[in-house]
Amino acid sequence: MERQPLMPQLAFLVEADRLKGVLRQTSIASGARLENSAEHSWHLALMASVLAGYAAEPVDLLRVLRMVLIHDLIEIDAGDTFAYDEAANATKEAREELAADRLFGMLPPGQDAEFRALWDEFEAGATPESRYANALDRLQPLLLNAENGGGSWRTHGIRRSQVLQRMEPIRTGTPELWPVVLAVVDWACAEEHIRP
Amino acid sequence: MERQPLMPQLAFLVEADRLKGVLRQTSIASGARLENSAEHSWHLALMASVLAGYAAEPVDLLRVLRMVLIHDLIEIDAGDTFAYDEAANATKEAREELAADRLFGMLPPGQDAEFRALWDEFEAGATPESRYANALDRLQPLLLNAENGGGSWRTHGIRRSQVLQRMEPIRTGTPELWPVVLAVVDWACAEEHIRP
Repeated sequence: MERQPLMPQLAFLVEADRLKGVLRQTSIASGARLENSAEHSWHLALMASVLAGYAAEPVDLLRVLRMVLIHDLIEIDAGDTFAYDEAANATKEAREELAADRLFGMLPPGQDAEFRALWDEFEAGATPESRYANALDRLQPLLLNAENGGGSWRTHGIRRSQVLQRMEPIRTGTPELWPVVLAVVDWACAEEHIRP
Repeated sequence: MERQPLMPQLAFLVEADRLKGVLRQTSIASGARLENSAEHSWHLALMASVLAGYAAEPVDLLRVLRMVLIHDLIEIDAGDTFAYDEAANATKEAREELAADRLFGMLPPGQDAEFRALWDEFEAGATPESRYANALDRLQPLLLNAENGGGSWRTHGIRRSQVLQRMEPIRTGTPELWPVVLAVVDWACAEEHIRP
């Protein structure tokens, strides 16, 4: 590994701390409070480490982990956009591009481009690593909602078809987990956590 | 990667969610609230990814990331033991061993031993990967305390010699960061965040 000028890196790492203050729509498993995007990113990275055998294609796990650790950093500026909010999603891309320019731009030359490329790769979802990462990014809130009694599905009156459309990347990224998704969604419909 | 029985893995990942409820002594950079161990683990993994060039010896970064993601999981059962609390530290090892038995024991055969070995390796600090991980585990709260105005140093009236002893793993794990530690500690003493 090449050494980089230190101070920009520490400034970036302190700035990154603000992700702990970005709240998601999903509650933690106990239902006690909303999850923040930093702890979500940790959970996702842990899932990637534990479930690596379920990736649809062989993946470079180091690349996956580095990707999921930074995949939500742009929310420091752009906020968390609720998956089922169509109006907010119309402006999401432009807001997130600006955020990526500023945040990854804090890193020293070379490393800025490297981290930005990892984020672009996650967003595009066109490599085995990003397909696996995106699948887990959908599975994680499903597990939490199932555990905490419906969570953001109930709050927003989400329908079965919306959930299944949202979970679609799991079908391609981790196909063996798709039956689990269907079982959880059917159970959640029966429990009236999800509208039919 | 070998595929593993799925349900134990999902149960482990849902149980792991409880780490989001374990509070540390350190506040987040804004000072608004205490940090939890899940978001701390994310921050540490991000630091490991960004600062890899500063490891004293060549490291397998994938191994480092997988290690820091699980290094605090045992706190779900054993709680966070404050670094400067001597009484609590006397019972820490026994409490954490029991926690490791239970938590990593939730994983399927093979994977349980693999994750347990990663945690044991972090605790022993006898490999290049664990020395690098332990160095960052000391640096992370130093950065937060410096940013949030003294934080847990002030709350507990910590002395300069205690901080420097606590930071010692940085000297061996990431020696080029040691001058940064000394500069931050000197500044924090001048600001009266740390007692002389």
